Amino acid sequence: MRYTRVSVDGRPVWGRVGEEDISLLSGSPLEGEPDVIGTVSRATAVWLPPVVPPVFYAVGFNYPRHIEHAGVPTPDRPEVGYRANNALTGHGSPIVKPDEVEGRFEAEPELVAVIGRTVRRATHEEARGSVFGWTIGNDVSARSWQHQDRTFWRSKNSDTFKPMGPWIETDVEALAQTTTLSVNGEVRAAFPTGDMVFDPFDYIVEITRHITLHPGDVLWMGAESTCRIEPGDTVDVEISGIGVLSNPVHPEGNHV
Amino acid sequence: MRYTRVSVDGRPVWGRVGEEDISLLSGSPLEGEPDVIGTVSRATAVWLPPVVPPVFYAVGFNYPRHIEHAGVPTPDRPEVGYRANNALTGHGSPIVKPDEVEGRFEAEPELVAVIGRTVRRATHEEARGSVFGWTIGNDVSARSWQHQDRTFWRSKNSDTFKPMGPWIETDVEALAQTTTLSVNGEVRAAFPTGDMVFDPFDYIVEITRHITLHPGDVLWMGAESTCRIEPGDTVDVEISGIGVLSNPVHPEGNHV
Repeated sequence: MRYTRVSVDGRPVWGRVGEEDISLLSGSPLEGEPDVIGTVSRATAVWLPPVVPPVFYAVGFNYPRHIEHAGVPTPDRPEVGYRANNALTGHGSPIVKPDEVEGRFEAEPELVAVIGRTVRRATHEEARGSVFGWTIGNDVSARSWQHQDRTFWRSKNSDTFKPMGPWIETDVEALAQTTTLSVNGEVRAAFPTGDMVFDPFDYIVEITRHITLHPGDVLWMGAESTCRIEPGDTVDVEISGIGVLSNPVHPEGNHV
Repeated sequence: MRYTRVSVDGRPVWGRVGEEDISLLSGSPLEGEPDVIGTVSRATAVWLPPVVPPVFYAVGFNYPRHIEHAGVPTPDRPEVGYRANNALTGHGSPIVKPDEVEGRFEAEPELVAVIGRTVRRATHEEARGSVFGWTIGNDVSARSWQHQDRTFWRSKNSDTFKPMGPWIETDVEALAQTTTLSVNGEVRAAFPTGDMVFDPFDYIVEITRHITLHPGDVLWMGAESTCRIEPGDTVDVEISGIGVLSNPVHPEGNHV
């Protein structure tokens, strides 16, 4: 099943995604079995981030080739960081590059686990059972800010820097897929989605030793490769078996 | 006015706090003017964190004496970090010290600004107008984890490490107050709340250059002094003109 949220008359509504249409739902599939209350066409839908997480977890260095390329030590345990909800934007919405950003402005294609139940002190098996489904994230990053600043506050969390979607796929072997990053239709990077140092379940086991995960929490799993993007580009992140998250890149001037 | 949230039959309900009683409200005062729908006694109320923020911002080194003591450079611009909602707990609820924590386990008494409107590219005056009210936070920290880990994920964000409350005070000159940290009734630290390198409005101006703040977002403002706490202690953070946030410290064993 594929679930997302769309904007209907300016309000967020959950939907179940079909081939042509999206069935609008009376509530969140994370909280029960909602009824169908309407339909919109996929062609005209305004896609929202499929979920707004209570906590937004993100993994840094987690792919061996990324770690080798960066020249950093391989993590010896799964340690997680955070991103911020203001930065979320949906499939089809623009990534806005701030005028002040200089140097490398990059896309990072990531698998995202969406938590489906309250979980603490999970076993590996409970960790598997705690994932409701999988979506796609683009961890857009302004490298000069990332290097200048003490935290990732603006380098990774400026408005529109975290496209997520287009939907949550509940029926996929997410770690057996391929992640592909394309700009204007040209493939810039492709890698096995599951070629991770620690997989999502390792992270869930480690996190929940000290932290309760809740329905709707998301865990972004890092990227093997990145590429530069610029205003005028359209950037697509595809994970086979899940879908394609596509966003145009706009200059800031359009939005002031 | 003082607003908070309390647990009523296991559900969170907004309330307006009076001398003896809490008037239960039909909705959030951040979203309009809710009606009074009931009353509970303050003496028996189960206090919740007064708000669950869309984004939980936190300031690090922000008091000159803290910076001097730590031997770090004074920040030359207001840079913000993040904490996580799972760690929030209400006035009166226990701070649980994990069995694995060794070394210094500390309380950090902080002023918290609660944002009341959607704001982007704020002037200093708009920043002042964007604050709905003020509450109190205790940024509980496990120092050994803080030094061992790449991020603050468990050192500052383990469950119960972020007491916040008891309420949001809307009518106070927050920066003209005194912050006092006490353990078992003994004062361990006291400092002028407003003796900051950058004040909350400086932060709001800087954050909103790149980021939209939303109603309910919170900004924890850092601490001048900290002190050790241990299971069996009761830790009180008082900010004059706002109130007292009091929490007992429990060992983990009580909660497994």
